[in-house]
Amino acid sequence: MKLVPLGDRVVIKQLEAEETTKSGIVLPGQNKEKPQQAEVIAVGPGGMVDGKEVKMEVKAGDKIIYSKYAGTEVKIDEDEYIIVKQSDILAIIE
Amino acid sequence: MKLVPLGDRVVIKQLEAEETTKSGIVLPGQNKEKPQQAEVIAVGPGGMVDGKEVKMEVKAGDKIIYSKYAGTEVKIDEDEYIIVKQSDILAIIE
Amino acid sequence: MKLVPLGDRVVIKQLEAEETTKSGIVLPGQNKEKPQQAEVIAVGPGGMVDGKEVKMEVKAGDKIIYSKYAGTEVKIDEDEYIIVKQSDILAIIE
Amino acid sequence: MKLVPLGDRVVIKQLEAEETTKSGIVLPGQNKEKPQQAEVIAVGPGGMVDGKEVKMEVKAGDKIIYSKYAGTEVKIDEDEYIIVKQSDILAIIE
Amino acid sequence: MKLVPLGDRVVIKQLEAEETTKSGIVLPGQNKEKPQQAEVIAVGPGGMVDGKEVKMEVKAGDKIIYSKYAGTEVKIDEDEYIIVKQSDILAIIE
Amino acid sequence: MKLVPLGDRVVIKQLEAEETTKSGIVLPGQNKEKPQQAEVIAVGPGGMVDGKEVKMEVKAGDKIIYSKYAGTEVKIDEDEYIIVKQSDILAIIE
Amino acid sequence: MKLVPLGDRVVIKQLEAEETTKSGIVLPGQNKEKPQQAEVIAVGPGGMVDGKEVKMEVKAGDKIIYSKYAGTEVKIDEDEYIIVKQSDILAIIE
Repeated sequence: MKLVPLGDRVVIKQLEAEETTKSGIVLPGQNKEKPQQAEVIAVGPGGMVDGKEVKMEVKAGDKIIYSKYAGTEVKIDEDEYIIVKQSDILAIIE
Repeated sequence: MKLVPLGDRVVIKQLEAEETTKSGIVLPGQNKEKPQQAEVIAVGPGGMVDGKEVKMEVKAGDKIIYSKYAGTEVKIDEDEYIIVKQSDILAIIE
Repeated sequence: MKLVPLGDRVVIKQLEAEETTKSGIVLPGQNKEKPQQAEVIAVGPGGMVDGKEVKMEVKAGDKIIYSKYAGTEVKIDEDEYIIVKQSDILAIIE
Repeated sequence: MKLVPLGDRVVIKQLEAEETTKSGIVLPGQNKEKPQQAEVIAVGPGGMVDGKEVKMEVKAGDKIIYSKYAGTEVKIDEDEYIIVKQSDILAIIE
Repeated sequence: MKLVPLGDRVVIKQLEAEETTKSGIVLPGQNKEKPQQAEVIAVGPGGMVDGKEVKMEVKAGDKIIYSKYAGTEVKIDEDEYIIVKQSDILAIIE
Repeated sequence: MKLVPLGDRVVIKQLEAEETTKSGIVLPGQNKEKPQQAEVIAVGPGGMVDGKEVKMEVKAGDKIIYSKYAGTEVKIDEDEYIIVKQSDILAIIE
Repeated sequence: MKLVPLGDRVVIKQLEAEETTKSGIVLPGQNKEKPQQAEVIAVGPGGMVDGKEVKMEVKAGDKIIYSKYAGTEVKIDEDEYIIVKQSDILAIIE
């Protein structure tokens, strides 16, 4: 199964908390606060969204920072994704 | 009886919870959380909606993910439908 | 007395609850939940409403589904009507 | 003293409750619920209001239904009026 | 000292409560409810306000009805004024 | 250190309460209610702000009345300023 | 790792509280109130954002005052940043 987002939506997958610490040591206590880093899985076509032209600026594979509490969590085949609007993506991590 | 949605509305029908698990085993306990997967039943004509041009991008038969709590539930001849705006549809499942 | 709606308003009259069940048997217990089916009685001229061009797409006699809690109830000569904006009408029942 | 409304405002005067019942019998108990029928007393010039062109479609003498809780009550020389925006007028009674 | 309002602002001065009763008798008990009648003291230039062209339609000396709770009270040299936007002025009293 | 406001922002400095009374006598009890008079310290360039063209109409040195609770207080080198949008400035005092 | 902000976003880094006092003495008690001074770390490309053309007017290295409570805090490699929209930046400190 594949998710094809509409309009300016972007399907993202949260990065594991242990990836957010520099060392390779897994720190389960830090898991409590939800990391806001995610990988882009699929990107909508953009175009006219709510009467405004939207150009998509992220692509599948980008690592991004997204706005806390934004988006809708969905579960497909045991995998968890979040669908956000591109405007909820704050920055790309390079 | 047939529902003909107006403007950018879409008539959808929620998919049964057991369809959302990979295996064929029915898991009634998982029914508690409302699945957000639905099938598109009928699609409005789009056009000018609230002063903005809307182009419909879903069609009857599409399986979709929609925004939790969106839409209005209606009951026609013992069948339950949800009428949402297309902007409440997040992604198509392929 | 006749109600002539202004702008994008539509005068509707709620359909009786017993009409919403397939069989002809009256089910008074189901009356508790307000049915959202109504018949269109009169339709405003549309045109520029709040700075946006609105084209009326329903006509007197249409059976419709409208958004729960929408509109204003009015009582004229012992008859009860609801005045809604066309955007509160979700679908036509055919 | 005369009230000259600005922009898309309309000065209305509430119709007495007993006028809203078909028979001529005065029913004081029905006074509790505020009738939403009024007569138009004066109409603003319309034109550009909040950046949108508004064309006035009611005239002095029209009997109208207005949106409950809309408008501002004013008292001039012991007479009570309500000043509403034309968009708070739902329908003309003919 | 003189107040020169900006944009679509209007400086008004509340009329005394006793002026709002037809007879010349001062009724202090009626002072409790704030009268909404005022005299226009100074009028802003209008023009582009929040991206919309506003044409000023009141002038100094006009007696007006204004929207209850609108505006900001200011005290200059012991005199109290209210600064409102023109859209908070409902009608001119002639 | 100097504050250079962006867009339609204006840096203002609240006038001391004793300046707001005609006599030269300092009235400390009146300090409780925050005076809304201020002097303009620095003015942003205006231009396109939130998609709307804004022309700046105040200049450094102007004494102004501003909207209570508007703006952000900042402290630079022990001096306290308030940064407001020009639309929060109600009138110039001449 | 580097943060590349999207649209009209700006990555900023809060200045230490002791930098906000003229003297060089560290005043830990003043740390309680969050200083609103920050340094610009990275600036988005601007362009069409939410249907409006945004021109970026700050650059990396600028010291700025930003709106309290604005923005999203992010932690990258033990460093804490705040991502704000340019419209949350009130003034540049020169």
